[in-house]
Amino acid sequence: MKFFFPKQTDFFELFDNASRNVIKGASLLVAVLQDMDNLEIISKAVRECEKEGDFMTHDIIKKLNKTFITPIDREDLHALAIKIDDVIDLIWACVERFTIFKLQKPTPEAVSMARELMATTEVMSKAVTALRNKKYSFVQEYCIEINSLENRIDRLYRETLVKLFEEADPIFIIKWKEVYEYLESASDACEDVANILEAIVLKYA
Amino acid sequence: MKFFFPKQTDFFELFDNASRNVIKGASLLVAVLQDMDNLEIISKAVRECEKEGDFMTHDIIKKLNKTFITPIDREDLHALAIKIDDVIDLIWACVERFTIFKLQKPTPEAVSMARELMATTEVMSKAVTALRNKKYSFVQEYCIEINSLENRIDRLYRETLVKLFEEADPIFIIKWKEVYEYLESASDACEDVANILEAIVLKYA
Amino acid sequence: MKFFFPKQTDFFELFDNASRNVIKGASLLVAVLQDMDNLEIISKAVRECEKEGDFMTHDIIKKLNKTFITPIDREDLHALAIKIDDVIDLIWACVERFTIFKLQKPTPEAVSMARELMATTEVMSKAVTALRNKKYSFVQEYCIEINSLENRIDRLYRETLVKLFEEADPIFIIKWKEVYEYLESASDACEDVANILEAIVLKYA
Repeated sequence: MKFFFPKQTDFFELFDNASRNVIKGASLLVAVLQDMDNLEIISKAVRECEKEGDFMTHDIIKKLNKTFITPIDREDLHALAIKIDDVIDLIWACVERFTIFKLQKPTPEAVSMARELMATTEVMSKAVTALRNKKYSFVQEYCIEINSLENRIDRLYRETLVKLFEEADPIFIIKWKEVYEYLESASDACEDVANILEAIVLKYA
Repeated sequence: MKFFFPKQTDFFELFDNASRNVIKGASLLVAVLQDMDNLEIISKAVRECEKEGDFMTHDIIKKLNKTFITPIDREDLHALAIKIDDVIDLIWACVERFTIFKLQKPTPEAVSMARELMATTEVMSKAVTALRNKKYSFVQEYCIEINSLENRIDRLYRETLVKLFEEADPIFIIKWKEVYEYLESASDACEDVANILEAIVLKYA
Repeated sequence: MKFFFPKQTDFFELFDNASRNVIKGASLLVAVLQDMDNLEIISKAVRECEKEGDFMTHDIIKKLNKTFITPIDREDLHALAIKIDDVIDLIWACVERFTIFKLQKPTPEAVSMARELMATTEVMSKAVTALRNKKYSFVQEYCIEINSLENRIDRLYRETLVKLFEEADPIFIIKWKEVYEYLESASDACEDVANILEAIVLKYA
């Protein structure tokens, strides 16, 4: 996999940084759900992560476009950068909804989903680090773990929706349905990252 | 198109199987709408189709990544596998909503949309088989048919929404709107499959 | 960038036409919001733009698939065609909602968002023309402008949602939320176009 690492740019270091930024966002999401009184401050911190993620992604893509690598590698690395960024974007969109919808009290379901999401981002980051360190069998193990975490969040999401629709207030339903959808999409995006990592390992390892 | 068929893997046989699995899911969707009393049993069967689709897609992608073909072919075949899988995923998401939302009686609009969708998946499968058999002009004809079926579902969806919003109960609206959206998205995904098939024929035939 | 322009097809002329078609759609969207009495007529005109966009996109993709260019260029040009078409599709979906939801009076927020969107499509079209004329530094400047317009629409969207959820009528909320989402997505699609243009300039200029 040497051709991956042109001397001037260590792309996997950049991916590593981007993944750790996602963990930070996910932890802040869990924090805000446990401490809605500090919504404004924590929300700003998540916004910073989202901006940092954008900056990192543009940096990676710029360097990819300026680096001589084969089209097929570029495609994979490009997709990886975009998907890691999607996770933090969706976390930010979720947190932003608390302010937009003036949600003052978290639901226990949101807390559970956010915790599982944080765990998923941690495994995702481990998988990226393993790829950086060329520990390919570890990459595959972490990807399987991400898939099983994603399945768990999926089930949780489904149960959460059943409970949500027992509510009588349609506006409450609209608001929280959107929050849960963002949490579920963020988890889906982690699974997409895992799929790309698996494909890279299969192709080049 | 010989380079498409390395001796070890007949990708088009795999696509053929995946398409037939989608038809099965679409038929079960029609069945469940005509027999909501058996929701639980039929729902499980659709879930099996969805899992089977996942399995088939991973198998195709794994084999693609392990097979020496040019990047551009790989991209097309990869996109085809993903999109066929999207159709069955959306059918499953739709069926799952009946349970989550505790819908007990189908609407006539849902039945009509599901029937048109089943017809679309049948033509989609015919198009894939035609590609497998190198009947390229048939592929193109079936793709045109898929496009016109998709337009019909689109119109149906629009009329269905008009009728839905004449309802007074917002929660009823939220639930059925989501069901109709999945039906419409499944039909869109069939059209995406048709577009990829057309592109493959244009490029290689 | 000569290899981009095989004698038989000037792709950038085609992109130029497609972008101007998007401006037309965006202007009609602004017009309809200022004159809801003529919804039916103006709506038909937007529908024509959407169909024209489809036709142009298929034409570009067909020609791309028939032209000998390297895979990586093709990917970029293909993505550009699809994304420009997404903008007009989303504008049409938005306008269609006025009829489906029987909206009779525009909100001031929808007018503001539509105006900003029209401005964005104008800059997008300028960026495409600049690429056609090989004025690469202008392309980059216009792309930065698109990004800042997109940020403005994002903020507007957020404020609009806050105001919308102060309404008591959930069905009103459902309807207008969807309209605003389409406006925001159209603006996102313009940003995607800008990202592709920037990548093309970076890679080939």
